Amino acid sequence: MIGRINHVAIAVPDVEAAARQWETGLCAVCSLPQSLPDHGVRVVFVDQPNAKVELMEPLGGNSPIAAFLDRNPAGGMHHICYEVADIRAARDHLVASGARVLGDGEPMSGAHGTPVLFLHPKDFYGTLIELEEVRD
Amino acid sequence: MIGRINHVAIAVPDVEAAARQWETGLCAVCSLPQSLPDHGVRVVFVDQPNAKVELMEPLGGNSPIAAFLDRNPAGGMHHICYEVADIRAARDHLVASGARVLGDGEPMSGAHGTPVLFLHPKDFYGTLIELEEVRD
Repeated sequence: MIGRINHVAIAVPDVEAAARQWETGLCAVCSLPQSLPDHGVRVVFVDQPNAKVELMEPLGGNSPIAAFLDRNPAGGMHHICYEVADIRAARDHLVASGARVLGDGEPMSGAHGTPVLFLHPKDFYGTLIELEEVRD
Repeated sequence: MIGRINHVAIAVPDVEAAARQWETGLCAVCSLPQSLPDHGVRVVFVDQPNAKVELMEPLGGNSPIAAFLDRNPAGGMHHICYEVADIRAARDHLVASGARVLGDGEPMSGAHGTPVLFLHPKDFYGTLIELEEVRD
C-alpha cells in the first residue's frame, strides 16, 4: 500500500533561521518560505534528489504544530509522509486493521493540494504518519 | 553537500511488534530483525522505492537509544540520515560553520558498514542528523 517516502516534516520555532542552518551547515538548497494559512504553518522545502524535508513554523492562532512546539520548544521531527495511490482504500484498510485516522476520517487537502490523512501516533509507536495520495 | 535521504530511524520498544504494525496497517514489506550488537540496536528495515525507515529497538546495556526510549516510552522518530560523498570534508565544513559533531568527531562504522557521524540536535532545531558516506 505505502509507496515512496514523500517528506519528513520538522517543526521549528523559526523557519528562516532553520533554513539558514540547513544551508550554512549542510549546504542544502532551501526554498523561500511559504505561508500556508489554511494549514497553520509557514514552510521551507529542502529538496534532496529522492525526497524532501519540510521545515515548518506555526502560523496563526490555531496551528496544528503549536502543541508540539510547546512540548519541544527547540523543535523536532514531527511526522513522516508516505505516498499512497488511493487514499480512501488505504484508509479503509487501516481502519479495518484497527488503526485510527485523525479527525473525521475523511481526506483533506494537504500542503501540496493533494488529499492527505494523518494516522494516530499511538498506533505507530509514537510516530505521526501522514498519507498523501499521489497518482501516477 | 548533503545528497539523498538514506533513512529515517524510529526508536521502538519492540521491533517485531512495530514491524507487524507496519506490515498489517500499511502493507509495508519489512526485513527480518537483525541484531547489531556493535551498535546496541536490533533493527528492521522497511524499504520504500526511494528511501527507508529503520525501526530500532535497544539491544544490550549501553544502547544509544535507551535514553530516548526512557523519555519516549512508546517510541518515536529518532533521527534522519543524509548521504554525503566525503564525510570528512562534510565534517570539516560543519565544524567550520559552528556545528558540533557528536563523540570525538571521527567517523565511525555505521549500521551499514559505511562511515557515519551524528550532529548535535541542538544545532539543528531538535533534530538528530546522521551523515553517512555513500560513494558512487
